[in-house]
Amino acid sequence: MAPTFSFCVLHTDGAARRGEITTAHGTVQTPAFMPVGTRGAVKAVTPRDLREVGAEIILGNTYHLWLRPGDGLIARLGGLHRFIGWDGPILTDSGGFQAFSLGERRVITEAGIRFRSHLDGSEHLLTPEGAAEIQAQLGPDIAMVLDECLAQPAPLSAVKESTERSARWARRGRDRFLELQALGAGEIRLDSETSESRVPNPESRPLVTNPGQAQFGIIQGGTVLELRTLSVERTLAIGFEAYAIGGLSVGEPADTMYSVVAHTAPQLPTGCPRYLMGVGTPLDIVEAVSRGIDLFDCVMPTRNARNGQLFTSEGRLTIKNARYAEDGGPLDPACACYTCRTHSRAYLRHLFVSGEIGAAVLNTIHNLRFYLDTMARVRQAIVFGTLETLRQSLQAMFSRPLSDS
Amino acid sequence: MAPTFSFCVLHTDGAARRGEITTAHGTVQTPAFMPVGTRGAVKAVTPRDLREVGAEIILGNTYHLWLRPGDGLIARLGGLHRFIGWDGPILTDSGGFQAFSLGERRVITEAGIRFRSHLDGSEHLLTPEGAAEIQAQLGPDIAMVLDECLAQPAPLSAVKESTERSARWARRGRDRFLELQALGAGEIRLDSETSESRVPNPESRPLVTNPGQAQFGIIQGGTVLELRTLSVERTLAIGFEAYAIGGLSVGEPADTMYSVVAHTAPQLPTGCPRYLMGVGTPLDIVEAVSRGIDLFDCVMPTRNARNGQLFTSEGRLTIKNARYAEDGGPLDPACACYTCRTHSRAYLRHLFVSGEIGAAVLNTIHNLRFYLDTMARVRQAIVFGTLETLRQSLQAMFSRPLSDS
Repeated sequence: MAPTFSFCVLHTDGAARRGEITTAHGTVQTPAFMPVGTRGAVKAVTPRDLREVGAEIILGNTYHLWLRPGDGLIARLGGLHRFIGWDGPILTDSGGFQAFSLGERRVITEAGIRFRSHLDGSEHLLTPEGAAEIQAQLGPDIAMVLDECLAQPAPLSAVKESTERSARWARRGRDRFLELQALGAGEIRLDSETSESRVPNPESRPLVTNPGQAQFGIIQGGTVLELRTLSVERTLAIGFEAYAIGGLSVGEPADTMYSVVAHTAPQLPTGCPRYLMGVGTPLDIVEAVSRGIDLFDCVMPTRNARNGQLFTSEGRLTIKNARYAEDGGPLDPACACYTCRTHSRAYLRHLFVSGEIGAAVLNTIHNLRFYLDTMARVRQAIVFGTLETLRQSLQAMFSRPLSDS
Repeated sequence: MAPTFSFCVLHTDGAARRGEITTAHGTVQTPAFMPVGTRGAVKAVTPRDLREVGAEIILGNTYHLWLRPGDGLIARLGGLHRFIGWDGPILTDSGGFQAFSLGERRVITEAGIRFRSHLDGSEHLLTPEGAAEIQAQLGPDIAMVLDECLAQPAPLSAVKESTERSARWARRGRDRFLELQALGAGEIRLDSETSESRVPNPESRPLVTNPGQAQFGIIQGGTVLELRTLSVERTLAIGFEAYAIGGLSVGEPADTMYSVVAHTAPQLPTGCPRYLMGVGTPLDIVEAVSRGIDLFDCVMPTRNARNGQLFTSEGRLTIKNARYAEDGGPLDPACACYTCRTHSRAYLRHLFVSGEIGAAVLNTIHNLRFYLDTMARVRQAIVFGTLETLRQSLQAMFSRPLSDS
């Protein structure tokens, strides 16, 4: 069965595109930001909250869901959408970045990434084929191919070798994805959750819980523009429903990131959405949109919320600051989220200082709403041809020192 | 200004009453359960969630709010209702129980309770007058008079002495409450937040943020029925808007508690609501209702929720139990709360085992809904004269061993 996936560009403003992605679970207006639901939950909020703040698509982490509760369990319960109670579009990463992040607990070979679980130390091998199988069982609308992440800075030879390996892995991951697509919605139960290599056999084929799933390839190549071009060539030759730019926002200067995006995005097909993985600040996002990017994800709004770091139309705000102790005004006078409609800065500070769970809930609702409102403004600006004006205003707002530091 | 407080009994079933309390912030159908919002927030849920699960009145803790963020701050921001974003009725306790619970950090004298703050070790004196002043500033619809809690078991002489002291404190607390009522909504700022004794003077009168506030007296006397009767006589002689039974649910057997309630409740005026403090399990509540009690509060539904202990129409349920790992059914098939409408037991188990904040949120929504639905069933049963049937069914459900233990 073919993926239920399409993309159309509705407007442009320079390199920026205002578009729409259609998936097996509905449409997504782009440029779009995907809140991160690492373990099958966007931390501290419910699916209802996500709808209310304007989320159209969320992200799940393959590594975490594979290890707990297990992709087989999720498949048997009907797939990730039903399991987490979110019926809109979902994208899952490949698990590669998390496995890579384990540091000394992982070894990368041509076969894949061998690592020890952060949960119980058990040994696992994540292969390109396995990443496709796990995601077939999870059933997101968009699966990501397994790529190799590389610690930066690295010698040119290492970057080149890694880029080539990512391309070989992409070929293997795509082949397995296409085999699973051909199988269609699986009637046959997978029995290989404990088998580390996930070699398919007739007795243990994965359940394909979302026959309309699409798969994105990932462009690597570090900050070496020639290698980015090489990776584009290799990855496009394989052919995916769309393409992501990986390996950025890992510590390099913002200017370097923008340059790599400006170099890479135009080489990707105009008829496919472009996804910049793991980015970023509101300013990073608008800078990347203006270079042709359509999709983003980042833990920043949710993680910062739990740490009391809030994004507002007046800049960043640290809620525990004593200046807010008797501030009876809303967190952000320009925001219409539940938190800003209901509570004062003084109350939010009290909850945060007291360690109340409600602080995480209310702060997360606000920060996500700020991000998603920003994306709505970005889309509107593209339609009206005013993206540069918006970029400048976000630059002024989020480059200056913290308003309360 | 007179308190905006009234109570009427609409139906009875034996000693049980189906009534309605009117306060300055709306009405409460009784028998009612008050979710506990210790530090100005019912843990893990928002005011919106509280409305949705059917809460009509919530409780705040004077001790905690006094020490942080401070009753003066809350008063300057308009009072507790505005501060926490809940516009329905609120009851605050007197702070006595929490101060008492500090153990070796507190000394009780005739003046009041001298204690060291659990936050920073600072020394404070909570007097009957001070408890009234703090609550005048917080502005709940119902304030509680300061009483002395006594560790049980205690020698008869100690219980008698304590009961007499509580009566003397009640007189002092009531006098100060009436003075503050006479002052009316205060234009004069309190400047005595740091003064430990809170002796009123013209320069530092408290802000009265809720001129319609009512004050409840508290019946003490431990498990000695004669002393309960003595306490009733002393407390009724002072005269409050209504009366609570304190000093129970502190470790005594359930039968003892029921006996004290059965002895005490009928001695309280039929025209006033009766509040059994800190009680209890669903079974305790219906047993107390059948003995004439109208109001309840307990941390059990919220605390148990955070510990993964859930109340359902099929009995108690420990969500981390492995038997729920692949259970795709709702937490409680008979429940219409957001959690039960949206998520499976398998997902709730996954969130709990993963330590996700969402587990606390979703479990709390459910447990509160269970308690508040139970209260609705209790009220309906009184109207239809079937409370005994309901009591038997709750007894069968919540006396038997855990369904999953």
